[in-house]
Amino acid sequence: MPYIQLNNDAPGIRSLVMYRPDTGKPLYELVQALLRAGSPDSTLSDAERELIAAYVSSRNRTAFCMNSHAAASRYLFGEQASVVDQALQNPETAPISSKLRALLTIAERVTADARTVTDDVVAAARTEGATDGDIHDTVLIAASFSMYNRYVDGLATLTPDDPAAYAAMGERMGKIGYALPKPN
Amino acid sequence: MPYIQLNNDAPGIRSLVMYRPDTGKPLYELVQALLRAGSPDSTLSDAERELIAAYVSSRNRTAFCMNSHAAASRYLFGEQASVVDQALQNPETAPISSKLRALLTIAERVTADARTVTDDVVAAARTEGATDGDIHDTVLIAASFSMYNRYVDGLATLTPDDPAAYAAMGERMGKIGYALPKPN
Repeated sequence: MPYIQLNNDAPGIRSLVMYRPDTGKPLYELVQALLRAGSPDSTLSDAERELIAAYVSSRNRTAFCMNSHAAASRYLFGEQASVVDQALQNPETAPISSKLRALLTIAERVTADARTVTDDVVAAARTEGATDGDIHDTVLIAASFSMYNRYVDGLATLTPDDPAAYAAMGERMGKIGYALPKPN
Repeated sequence: MPYIQLNNDAPGIRSLVMYRPDTGKPLYELVQALLRAGSPDSTLSDAERELIAAYVSSRNRTAFCMNSHAAASRYLFGEQASVVDQALQNPETAPISSKLRALLTIAERVTADARTVTDDVVAAARTEGATDGDIHDTVLIAASFSMYNRYVDGLATLTPDDPAAYAAMGERMGKIGYALPKPN
């Protein structure tokens, strides 16, 4: 039961942006810029961007964001979908690129305490082929999901239990990206 | 020294939004909506909104955001400016309203782990006069500064030492709010 009257029964972040389109608009523009458009020099795929978002949400234990972005990542990975759950479980042993593994280390540090990011972990990502844009986008995806996670959890928004609900969300997110739903 | 080449020598978040105006635009629109426009039913002043932002940044130990938003809050509080440093030190003893004190408790919980917000702390804020809009805005200010703080720290942006630099920033933020600086 959400802590404030949202006047709609949408789940998670959707209920909040329908309630408050003035803040919802920049919140959706930001996620679209980070998970779809990306940096001009970035080498990350949309599937990998969704995986970073799901990974950060799993570390913050925000079920709604983790399940929906994991579903979007699975949809975008297609035949390689199983990589998503392996990476969420343990990036060290998952069959992902060394570059993505190094970027997930940066994402994890930003999530826990961004002051623990060091020259060393940034240099390690560069050695594996990460560009300035990849590093920028990874830091801001991790930082922004540290916001979305807190917004959803701090107001106790609706979190569906049914995996099928997330699969449908993931397919929609994979197909059309992030467009602001109609306000209340 | 920032971890990526920003091609400008602006401090903190300004250096990042000049480097990446595509993400900078929604980031500045969001902070303007939260620290200036606010919820239609909100009872919080701009000075109090800036104080919540500075408080969250102090808990995340992000010097740039804490010093700049504390300076903006002091500017906006005018003759009551000393309340800002008292509240950053200890909200329990600072001469602030019981409503703002209750909202700072919510902000602190969102910052640490948003899943620790409870019916009780929300009810306590309502008893002191907080509206749905006040609770919404407090949660999203705390969540969004948990992002801005991580973005600034995770890329190791420039943090000036000189208090006069922050006083000038605070005056500008108090007078004109948040307008995107010209891109690189």
